[in-house]
Amino acid sequence: MREKQIEFFWDAASPYTYLAATQIEALAARCGAQVQWRPFLLGKVFEASGNRMPASVPAKAKYLFGDCKLWARLYDVPLSFPKIFPINSVLALRCACAAEALGRQPAFALAVMRAYWADGADISQPQVLQALAEGLGIDGAALLVQAQSQAVKDLLRANTDDAVKRNVFGAPTFFVGEQMFWGNDRLQLLEAFVGGKLAA
Amino acid sequence: MREKQIEFFWDAASPYTYLAATQIEALAARCGAQVQWRPFLLGKVFEASGNRMPASVPAKAKYLFGDCKLWARLYDVPLSFPKIFPINSVLALRCACAAEALGRQPAFALAVMRAYWADGADISQPQVLQALAEGLGIDGAALLVQAQSQAVKDLLRANTDDAVKRNVFGAPTFFVGEQMFWGNDRLQLLEAFVGGKLAA
Repeated sequence: MREKQIEFFWDAASPYTYLAATQIEALAARCGAQVQWRPFLLGKVFEASGNRMPASVPAKAKYLFGDCKLWARLYDVPLSFPKIFPINSVLALRCACAAEALGRQPAFALAVMRAYWADGADISQPQVLQALAEGLGIDGAALLVQAQSQAVKDLLRANTDDAVKRNVFGAPTFFVGEQMFWGNDRLQLLEAFVGGKLAA
Repeated sequence: MREKQIEFFWDAASPYTYLAATQIEALAARCGAQVQWRPFLLGKVFEASGNRMPASVPAKAKYLFGDCKLWARLYDVPLSFPKIFPINSVLALRCACAAEALGRQPAFALAVMRAYWADGADISQPQVLQALAEGLGIDGAALLVQAQSQAVKDLLRANTDDAVKRNVFGAPTFFVGEQMFWGNDRLQLLEAFVGGKLAA
C-alpha cells in the first residue's frame, strides 16, 4: 500500500468533479500516493456552508461550461452538457458506497460520471445505475439492494458530515492530511504538494 | 510586436491577481504573446454581476489564504496577508492608468501589488504610491497629478464597463479574443490555449 493518502470528496452532480476524477488516479500514481474516494452530498455542503452553486451568478454560468469544455480538451476526455441538470445524485452516490464494499468504487464512480457528463444518461434512475454496474461486471440488482441499506446511507451521511466539519464548501475537494485542495483547478497544486515541492 | 494578445484585467485588491501578475509576462513570452494590462474596479464588477467576494462564505474564507500561500510557494514569490483588507485600490489603479502613458504600467502594477501583498503597504495612500513610482524612476508627484485627470478616470471607468459588458465577474480575468479565462488557476489552461494546444 502506498503511504501517502489523498482523500477525494466527489459528487457526480459536479462537472469539475468529473474532470478531476478522470485525472486523479494517474496523478496519485505519479506521486506514489493512494486515493481514498469519498462520495458526499454537495447540496448538503452548500446548505451548511452558505456557499452557492457556481452557476447561480449569471455571468459565471455563461462562462463555466465553456471553461469545462476547455479542461476536457486539455485532458482529452469527452464532455457534453447533460439535458438533465442539476441532477439528483443520491442514489448514484449510495451505489458508489455499496461498490466500495466490493473494492470497485473508483471504477463505478468514473462510469457514473462519464455516463452523465459525456453520454447524458439519467443517473438518478435505478435501471441506469444497474446497467452501469453490470458493464463493470458487478451484480447491479444486488448493488441497488445494498444501496438502500442503513449502513450505506450512514456512510454517505458520515462522509458528508465529515466534509462539513472540515470546512468543505464545494467539489471536488481533496485532502492530504488536513491540507485542503478545492477544485479541479487545484490538481497542479495538489501534485506539487504531494510530491514534496511546496515545503514551507 | 507579438501577434497574439492576452488582455489582463487586474485589480490590486485581489490576492489571486497579484499571484497571476507575477507569472503572466513569462507565460506570454513562452507563447510569443503580448499582455495588455487593463486595470479595472473589481468591486464594480461584483456589484454588476451579483457575484460576491470569495471570502464572503466563511468556510471558503478559512481556506483561501492558505491556498494563496501554497500558490506563492509554487511560484516562489513572497506573500503575507495585509493588515488592511479589503483596501481601496482606486487611486492605485488610476496611477497605473497614468503609468500606461509612460509605457510603465506593468512595472508599476507589479510594484503596487507586491508592496501590498508582500510588504503590507497601504496602497490607498498617495505618498505610498508616489514612493513606489519613484522607486521605478517615475516622477511620482507628476503621476499623482495625472491620476486625477479626467482622461485617466475615464480610462479606468471604460475598462470596468468593458469588463462588465463582457461578463467578467471576478479577478484576475484574461481574454484571448473573446475567450475568457478567470482566475490565477486558469494560467495552465490559458497557456495551452494561446499555445494552440486546445483546438476544438
